[in-house]
Amino acid sequence: VKNRFFQDIGGSVTAPQGFRAAGVFCDIKRLGTGKGSNKGQKRDLALIVSDVPAAVAGTFTTNRVCAAPVKLCADCVARGTARAIVVNSGNANACTGRQGRRDAQAMAQAVAEACRGGEISAREVLVASTGRIGVPLPMTQVKQGILDVAGLLGGGAAQARQASEAIMTSDTRPKEIAVEFALGGKKVRLGGICKGAGMIQPGMSPTGARPALQSLHATMLCFLTTDAAVETKFLQAALNDAVAKSFNRITVDGDMSTNDTVLVLANGRADNPPLTARAGDRRQFQAALDYVTLELAKKIVLDGEGVSRFVTVRVTGARSPGDADAAARAVANSTLVKTSWCGGDPNWGRILCALGYSEAGVEENRIDVGYSLPGRKEVLYSLKRGSPTKVSFGALCKITCTPAFDLHIDLHLGRASAVIYSADLTEAYVDFNKGDVTDPSSLGG
Amino acid sequence: VKNRFFQDIGGSVTAPQGFRAAGVFCDIKRLGTGKGSNKGQKRDLALIVSDVPAAVAGTFTTNRVCAAPVKLCADCVARGTARAIVVNSGNANACTGRQGRRDAQAMAQAVAEACRGGEISAREVLVASTGRIGVPLPMTQVKQGILDVAGLLGGGAAQARQASEAIMTSDTRPKEIAVEFALGGKKVRLGGICKGAGMIQPGMSPTGARPALQSLHATMLCFLTTDAAVETKFLQAALNDAVAKSFNRITVDGDMSTNDTVLVLANGRADNPPLTARAGDRRQFQAALDYVTLELAKKIVLDGEGVSRFVTVRVTGARSPGDADAAARAVANSTLVKTSWCGGDPNWGRILCALGYSEAGVEENRIDVGYSLPGRKEVLYSLKRGSPTKVSFGALCKITCTPAFDLHIDLHLGRASAVIYSADLTEAYVDFNKGDVTDPSSLGG
Repeated sequence: VKNRFFQDIGGSVTAPQGFRAAGVFCDIKRLGTGKGSNKGQKRDLALIVSDVPAAVAGTFTTNRVCAAPVKLCADCVARGTARAIVVNSGNANACTGRQGRRDAQAMAQAVAEACRGGEISAREVLVASTGRIGVPLPMTQVKQGILDVAGLLGGGAAQARQASEAIMTSDTRPKEIAVEFALGGKKVRLGGICKGAGMIQPGMSPTGARPALQSLHATMLCFLTTDAAVETKFLQAALNDAVAKSFNRITVDGDMSTNDTVLVLANGRADNPPLTARAGDRRQFQAALDYVTLELAKKIVLDGEGVSRFVTVRVTGARSPGDADAAARAVANSTLVKTSWCGGDPNWGRILCALGYSEAGVEENRIDVGYSLPGRKEVLYSLKRGSPTKVSFGALCKITCTPAFDLHIDLHLGRASAVIYSADLTEAYVDFNKGDVTDPSSLGG
Repeated sequence: VKNRFFQDIGGSVTAPQGFRAAGVFCDIKRLGTGKGSNKGQKRDLALIVSDVPAAVAGTFTTNRVCAAPVKLCADCVARGTARAIVVNSGNANACTGRQGRRDAQAMAQAVAEACRGGEISAREVLVASTGRIGVPLPMTQVKQGILDVAGLLGGGAAQARQASEAIMTSDTRPKEIAVEFALGGKKVRLGGICKGAGMIQPGMSPTGARPALQSLHATMLCFLTTDAAVETKFLQAALNDAVAKSFNRITVDGDMSTNDTVLVLANGRADNPPLTARAGDRRQFQAALDYVTLELAKKIVLDGEGVSRFVTVRVTGARSPGDADAAARAVANSTLVKTSWCGGDPNWGRILCALGYSEAGVEENRIDVGYSLPGRKEVLYSLKRGSPTKVSFGALCKITCTPAFDLHIDLHLGRASAVIYSADLTEAYVDFNKGDVTDPSSLGG
């Protein structure tokens, strides 16, 4: 990253001061292969703890069917401060009714008890879950896991890596980031981990109210830590802005999960003058948060289930931001467009078709469609003002057959624009998700 | 079909009196393998002609990017009478600008000239196209084809079969139907052919205005003929009703085409007293039209690209018809739900997730989810009031592993209901549509 005031330091949630993390295997899928820390099994329980109370902000799925831990987190975020985040994978604790709410609460309580000496109250513990829907959590395993993971907490990169692995479901690799920058004369750090893979088109809001722009849906989870001192209200506003430009702009399969959650803890250990909406250096913090969330969001799409191509859909010239968003999402979620990307096909007919049925205002004879390699200025147009150009099919394929490209759509009707980060739809996605009814344990959430 | 006043007579568009049809191969994809009637190649040009002027009604795609022939048909339907329908497959004549409009017009003109002696004016010729988007029609081939097909017109089942074959694109089989019933003391018949396969979630209206209910999209084409005498205004109203309950209730891949068209010609040769909105026997006609359009619509889903399972999504207990429709479409178009059907998985978590992100009002702890075999009353519920039932996984799989089943969702919030006819999403669909950029002729519309 050039010309930025912050530096990507290649770390994770433990890069900021005063945060510890760990991840263990506790057999949440009840494979029956033992308890305790990882014994060659995939880790499934993560804990992140701040040494001191931290300001907290969060955004959550707007799915009306929303998991028990999401409700617990929303309540905790409303109180403004938190100390810990406990996360399990393998079971979403969604559609689990009253038992689900009790279990989420019991997870918070177990963390409070396991972190004895840290003086953490259950009300300061955030809980997140991802995995199968509709199955009660195996609380014996979860509670043992919490005892184990609390004993392994540490501030190193290795422990953060354990945590980033423990939150994975169908992800093929952990997703981590950390940046460092100056704030009020102090060195501050911002780190994060996330997971995604399927059921991904988040449409999150701080309160559960639907965002103004149409937005649809995987379970994506993201946990951010910073040692900056940030006033809670500003932290929430900054997170809302960042999420609107990152996680709420991605789609893998167009399905919005019941569990999507982004949480940020700001523990103030960097001793900068607390950031508020009026602080002069709030923009630096926002820019760093924007960068971290966008990089993590892109990692989710790149590692989406069966994904072979990452496509950035850029719509310009729309009559309104709502139109730009609707046009970009229609293209980014069209089954036919996504399968054409799978084959590296620079098809514009399906793109025009999707634009035409979107809720956006479009006029066929004004539309430009072009392709570019990411970060490159040269756009090769296949369509200009609704008419095919002379650009050769082969030249277009040289771009669309690469693992990542940008699709440029100019509607030439106004000045609004929108970006959606999307991916192709592949046979591997179908194969992964179709399950095998002869093996119920293979069936996804 | 039991207890119905009409009889399914196993015919097609030539079953009603005074209609002739034919289908030929004229090399629209320019394979360079010759002209004239079918020489072992797939037919690609169909013609249906009424011996006398017929009342006409139509519904058309509400895609804002709409093909040239659709506009031509809408104009002809507005004039109220027509004599012929010419249809080509292999090329959609969509996104072809002014040339496209000239070509559609030239097809109508060529039919008028080819049917010399029939005294058909170009203004009485309806035109429909399906296939690749954005490629100009090869008019030399098309005009020769029209000359050829006009010479082969006949009133037999074989000629109607040719027409039904000629309109196919990725369809694997022709789709035909005809019924017979009494109207005003006269025996009347209603016949039809259609095609579909991919880019299928029609949302048609008579005028191009969006239907009130959310509706999205393949090219589906349907051509209906009847020898009943029907007043034009009532014919359009009856068609609107029938399409709302049939073609606008299906989805294969959620993509609404640029070319979706349903046309009906009523030539009055049965000599019944002309049907109007006040006629006593209008309900018989409506019921027959409803039956014919729904049977044809289901055939499209059953023969959808890569489809291995036909699923009827039945939502009841919604607060409003709009909510019922939104809930049913969210489930019927969810990538994750459709892939779970592919594996025969009676997954309810993904269904609840889709309901939750739909625009419909839902309350998790009220929702029932059940399965039944088509036409059977017994519903096996996997979920009642948001809680899993004791019905075994194996018992559910016995239903969901069959080639066709009904999914029952009761929201228990109101009295509105909706049905959507959907299908699974398979690896075969992705394989078929991903194209092969090394063979541009394989790339779909």
